[in-house]
Amino acid sequence: MSVTIRQIATDLALAVSTVSKALRDSHEISPETKRRVFDYAKKLDYIPNLYASCLKNRKTGNIAVVLPEIADSFFSLAIDGIESVAQHKGYHVMVYLTHEDIRKEESILRDFRSGRVDGVLISVSCGADSNSHIHDLCSQHIPLVFFDRVCEHIQASKVVTNDFQSAYNATEHLINRGCNRIAFLAMSNKLAITNHRQKGYEEAMCRYDHPIDKNSVLNCKNDETENYSLIEGLMRGKDRPDGVVGSGEKLTTLVYTVCNDLNLRIPHDVKIVGFSSLEIASLLNPSLTTITQPAFDIGKTAATLLFNALEKKKGVMQQESITIPSVLFERQSTR
Amino acid sequence: MSVTIRQIATDLALAVSTVSKALRDSHEISPETKRRVFDYAKKLDYIPNLYASCLKNRKTGNIAVVLPEIADSFFSLAIDGIESVAQHKGYHVMVYLTHEDIRKEESILRDFRSGRVDGVLISVSCGADSNSHIHDLCSQHIPLVFFDRVCEHIQASKVVTNDFQSAYNATEHLINRGCNRIAFLAMSNKLAITNHRQKGYEEAMCRYDHPIDKNSVLNCKNDETENYSLIEGLMRGKDRPDGVVGSGEKLTTLVYTVCNDLNLRIPHDVKIVGFSSLEIASLLNPSLTTITQPAFDIGKTAATLLFNALEKKKGVMQQESITIPSVLFERQSTR
Repeated sequence: MSVTIRQIATDLALAVSTVSKALRDSHEISPETKRRVFDYAKKLDYIPNLYASCLKNRKTGNIAVVLPEIADSFFSLAIDGIESVAQHKGYHVMVYLTHEDIRKEESILRDFRSGRVDGVLISVSCGADSNSHIHDLCSQHIPLVFFDRVCEHIQASKVVTNDFQSAYNATEHLINRGCNRIAFLAMSNKLAITNHRQKGYEEAMCRYDHPIDKNSVLNCKNDETENYSLIEGLMRGKDRPDGVVGSGEKLTTLVYTVCNDLNLRIPHDVKIVGFSSLEIASLLNPSLTTITQPAFDIGKTAATLLFNALEKKKGVMQQESITIPSVLFERQSTR
Repeated sequence: MSVTIRQIATDLALAVSTVSKALRDSHEISPETKRRVFDYAKKLDYIPNLYASCLKNRKTGNIAVVLPEIADSFFSLAIDGIESVAQHKGYHVMVYLTHEDIRKEESILRDFRSGRVDGVLISVSCGADSNSHIHDLCSQHIPLVFFDRVCEHIQASKVVTNDFQSAYNATEHLINRGCNRIAFLAMSNKLAITNHRQKGYEEAMCRYDHPIDKNSVLNCKNDETENYSLIEGLMRGKDRPDGVVGSGEKLTTLVYTVCNDLNLRIPHDVKIVGFSSLEIASLLNPSLTTITQPAFDIGKTAATLLFNALEKKKGVMQQESITIPSVLFERQSTR
C-alpha cells in the first residue's frame, strides 16, 4: 500500500495542504514543520506521485531519442552516449524506433506535443518528404537536437560527423589502392548525410579523373532483400566495380554476403570500405576497412546540447552545429 | 501556442467543466454539445494534456524495458520484438540501461514506484546480490515480466530460452567434432542463465566421460580488459583447450580476438561455439558456430504477456513461464 500525503497529514495531525507545501519546500511553512514532515516522509518511504508533480512543474524528467533502428552499431553506441549524460542529469531516456516509417515518426512526434517528454533527440527516418511534424514540435518550444541524420532546413542544434570529407577520404583510399571502377552504395537520397557522402565520393572521383558511370551509384532501399538484388546486379554486371564505398553498415556487410555467394574474393576482386562503428569489424573475413563514426561521442554531445537547452529559460535555446570527425581504419578489405 | 480546454470553452461559450466532461465523453453532456466540442477541438488540433489525464486514469501509456546493455545483438533484437507489440498496442517503450550496475537497477526500479510506467520488462543485471528492489516493485502491483535473465525466486511471468539444453547441445557438438579439453566461459555466476548453461555443459562433459578440469570453467567479469586477460591466460596455459563454449556474445568474439593475437587458428587449434544472435556471424573469420537465441520472439512474447496483464484487472495477473528454444547453427569455427 503506498503512502499518501493524506496519511502523512493524519499521522502528524497537520493539514494536507501543509504537508504538500512542506514537501515542496514552500516558504509558507516553518523550518521545524518542514523537518518533521521530511523526516516522517522519509521514514515511511514516501514517494511523491510523479504525475501530480508533473502537472505543477511541467517537467517530466524524460527525454526521447527517436531513431530508425537499434540493431545497428552506430545507433546502439549513440544511445550509450546519450544515456551516459542523461543518467548523470537524473533524466530518463525513452527510445522510440521509427523503422524508417515517416507515418510512425509523425505519430511519435505528435504525441510528444501532449507533454510526454521535456526534450527530443532525433535522427530522422529516410522516408521523409516533409518536415512539418518536426516544425510543429519545435513551434511548441520543446527543445530538439538532431544527431547524425539531420534536417538541414530546420533551425535546431545538430551534431554530425564530417560526412563529405569522410566519403572523400574513403574514395581516395580506394583510388590509392589501385581501384578504377568505384561504386557508391547510397542510402535514401532523402537524407542529408547520404547526399554529403555521395558528394564526397563524386569530388574524389572527379579530382582523380575517374569517370562516374551512371550505374556506379546504387540507390539502395529500406529493404534488405531488394538491396541484395541491387548489389548482386551490380556485382554480376559487365563492368563490375573493383572498389565499393558503402554509406551504411548494413549495406556494407551485405556486399560481403553477396561476394561470398558469388565467389568474389575481397580484396582481390573487389575492395570494400564502409561507414560503420562495428566493434568486430576486425574479425570479419576479411577484416573490414571502416570509416568509424564517433557514435558514442555524437550521442553524448547531442545530449549535452539538449540539457543545456533544458537548463536555460524557454525561448533562449542557442542553435549550435557540431561536427565530430570520423576516422578511417584500414584493414584487409582494402589491402 | 497550445490550445487549452479553457480556450475551447471561451470560444464556444461553454463552461470549462462542460468542455472537459464532453471531451471525456461523459453521460452528463448532451450528444449535440459533445459533437460541437469534438468538432471544434479537432479543428483547433487540440491535444489533451497527458499528465492531467494520467492523474485520472492512472495510466501512463509507457512500458519500461530494463536491461544491461544495448550494444549486444540479443538485446537490440529483443527490443525490436518488444517494440513490435508495443506500437501495435499504442504504448511507448522506455529503454533503461543498467550497465550491469545493481545500484542503477535499484534506482531505476524505485523510480517506477512513483507511477512513471504501467508495466516493466526486465532482464536483470549480473551484479545483483539481492532482489528486494524487484520484490518492492511487484508489491506495488506494477506488472513485471522477466525475459532472458530472470530471478527464479520471484513469482512473475518469465520468457527464456532453453539454456541448459542449448549448452548441452553446444558441448556435445564440440565433442562430436573431436574436442577433448573443452572450456566454458561463464558470465556472472549470479545469473540463473549462466548456471543453467554451465550445468548443460557439465552434463554433456559427464555424459561423454570428459573430465572437467578446474581451470576449464572461466568465471568472466563485467570488464572487457579483465576478460581478455582471463581468456589469454586460458589460451596460453599448458593444457590449452581445443574447444570453447562461450556463454555470451561479447565473450565469444573476445576469444576470436585473443586467438588472432596469439596466432591460434580457429578451428584448427581451437573450435568455438557461442551463444549469439549476431546477424553477421557467418561473415566472421572463420564464420562462427552459434547457439542462436530467438531474441526477437523472446522480446515479443514477453511484451505480449505484459499487455495481457495490463489488460486484466489488478491482482489477477497469471504467472506464465515460456521457453522458446535456441537453434545451433554450425559454421566454420567448429568444422
